[in-house]
Amino acid sequence: MGTKVEKLKINFKTLEEFKKFKEYGLQELSMLEDLEANMVDNDIESPFYGIYFGDKLVARMSLYQIDAKYDRYFYPPQNYLELWKLEVLPDYQGRGYGRMLVEFAKSFGLPIKTNPRVQSRDFWEKMGFTSVDYDMERDRGENPLVWYPEGVKAQ
Amino acid sequence: MGTKVEKLKINFKTLEEFKKFKEYGLQELSMLEDLEANMVDNDIESPFYGIYFGDKLVARMSLYQIDAKYDRYFYPPQNYLELWKLEVLPDYQGRGYGRMLVEFAKSFGLPIKTNPRVQSRDFWEKMGFTSVDYDMERDRGENPLVWYPEGVKAQ
Repeated sequence: MGTKVEKLKINFKTLEEFKKFKEYGLQELSMLEDLEANMVDNDIESPFYGIYFGDKLVARMSLYQIDAKYDRYFYPPQNYLELWKLEVLPDYQGRGYGRMLVEFAKSFGLPIKTNPRVQSRDFWEKMGFTSVDYDMERDRGENPLVWYPEGVKAQ
Repeated sequence: MGTKVEKLKINFKTLEEFKKFKEYGLQELSMLEDLEANMVDNDIESPFYGIYFGDKLVARMSLYQIDAKYDRYFYPPQNYLELWKLEVLPDYQGRGYGRMLVEFAKSFGLPIKTNPRVQSRDFWEKMGFTSVDYDMERDRGENPLVWYPEGVKAQ
């Protein structure tokens, strides 16, 4: 098979593939606008990683490094990754693609924070993520889950 | 009828009512834990407002004031309200309860930011909310909508 996680280039082809995912939103529309305004491909820094099955994008996530000075989740305070829009297309679920993406994110060795959809909590627990102590000022109704690499604790 | 918006007291009765809402999550569980630990009612500062129909809670929202120094949305930078978990129970939708809650939030005269579920965009537009210019570092995959009182602009 040779299935692998790759960084997605942000071009018209990728953005067209993104339309198949439920969590298509302002982020994708904004990228599309940028592309249209510049009339150039492949030059936008991409936070997206994905898995292709043949030439079809079947899974994706967004991953963005947050600077230590904004860290309100981990101790000692440090750079960490925020992960969002982890999604596998319905016909391709149950094949370990979600797990592959999360393992890829973990491979950077940084703590990870995500705000999962309520229905996906079991998956995240299997991946070693745990709830934080809710802080209204910081979390504002979200249900953040975090993953601690060795030596990292809650703030 | 005398339907009105009221600040919800956080006690066991209210938390039991919250279980009927879809967006029950870490915030509510954390409040429940606090109540159980202290064995006292009504003493937790509540960010929740709601509407009762008879003695049944049928609509709610969370509203929290963010300090101007954290304002990355409005110009001039100022205190603003973050609104989340706006929700009307299915049997009570279409009666203007959602609108009543939003009008209540607007009555403070502060700008408002919310991260709506995708399906509710039409409602928010009717309420005068607009999209922001997406900023990945700030918005991280969210689709924030904002409401500007007179004299306030985007940052």
